[in-house]
Amino acid sequence: MRLLEERIRKDGVVKEGNVLKVDSFLNHQMDIALFNEMGREWKRLFEGERITKILTIEASGIGIAAVCAQYFDVPVVFAKKSQSINLDGSVYSTRIQSFTHQRVYDVIVSRKYLGPEDRVLVIDDFLANGNAINGLISIIRDAGAELAGVGIAVEKGFQDGGKQLRDAGIRVESLAILESMDASTGEIVFREQE
Amino acid sequence: MRLLEERIRKDGVVKEGNVLKVDSFLNHQMDIALFNEMGREWKRLFEGERITKILTIEASGIGIAAVCAQYFDVPVVFAKKSQSINLDGSVYSTRIQSFTHQRVYDVIVSRKYLGPEDRVLVIDDFLANGNAINGLISIIRDAGAELAGVGIAVEKGFQDGGKQLRDAGIRVESLAILESMDASTGEIVFREQE
Repeated sequence: MRLLEERIRKDGVVKEGNVLKVDSFLNHQMDIALFNEMGREWKRLFEGERITKILTIEASGIGIAAVCAQYFDVPVVFAKKSQSINLDGSVYSTRIQSFTHQRVYDVIVSRKYLGPEDRVLVIDDFLANGNAINGLISIIRDAGAELAGVGIAVEKGFQDGGKQLRDAGIRVESLAILESMDASTGEIVFREQE
Repeated sequence: MRLLEERIRKDGVVKEGNVLKVDSFLNHQMDIALFNEMGREWKRLFEGERITKILTIEASGIGIAAVCAQYFDVPVVFAKKSQSINLDGSVYSTRIQSFTHQRVYDVIVSRKYLGPEDRVLVIDDFLANGNAINGLISIIRDAGAELAGVGIAVEKGFQDGGKQLRDAGIRVESLAILESMDASTGEIVFREQE
């Protein structure tokens, strides 16, 4: 998606260790007009797919998923990163290793909000090694729901999460795929799409 | 706001310990059409206020703030609950005691996204003792920004967070204010507003 690539070039900051900071518009400060354009694009890409629910994970997926859900007219469920006393005990759960925070955490979704009747679009801000997305997919499978596909804002194409998902036959629509980044020059190369 | 009160009566669940579970539409599964109506109502209530930014806190405030920001045409910044290696060191921070999770956590906002030029609307899902909102207000003051007001989905009127804020001259617009709840009968009494 040209608009997102241009925005990453303009406002993204490449840091050592293959870190791309997009917190001025994507995952700390959020540009809601941009999120609307992303929603429009995913709607175009997943046109014709029957989707009943969008699933994301706290925290940075929530804003994107909430705005984009308007184009699908479905509820959003966000997976929670730790047990809250305000959630019933009856949950699907999985463990996810976080690259960003360098720790393992439990992720839960209430059984009430995902079931065999659902056809789910997974939305998240980043895809790198795929740990978070694989955790969400495992929850969808536990629920007996069907996975319609995965919508990602920024995929790190030089890590293998996206390749593994596509090799497993899962439809992944990443709006920008980073082929390489250079922290010394700030140069970013995107993968050509369609 | 009648629509939200009706939804709470229909789908909210009153639990022992003054807990109202609204996770079927507000803070786990999210009804985005409802969030749009909430945004429309806050826009009406804060009409004429110059607002440059919406500030919320992860995780359950983010979806509401992101959808509602569309009515104000401003970016959303969400305060983060723990230091991430992807955030620069240059942050405003405060400590917040969580009623729900019964622990204290650090909350941060990058200095880049809040400053003296900002007039801020704070949005969150719940207001009880006011700890989270007071933490966000302390960050706004540290930034030298101006607080335009606070928009809350559900205020627990029997706890004193809302009263303290209003006594301090802060404009708080809660779309539903709980006067009392009875876990044995499920009865909910709302405060009359305008």
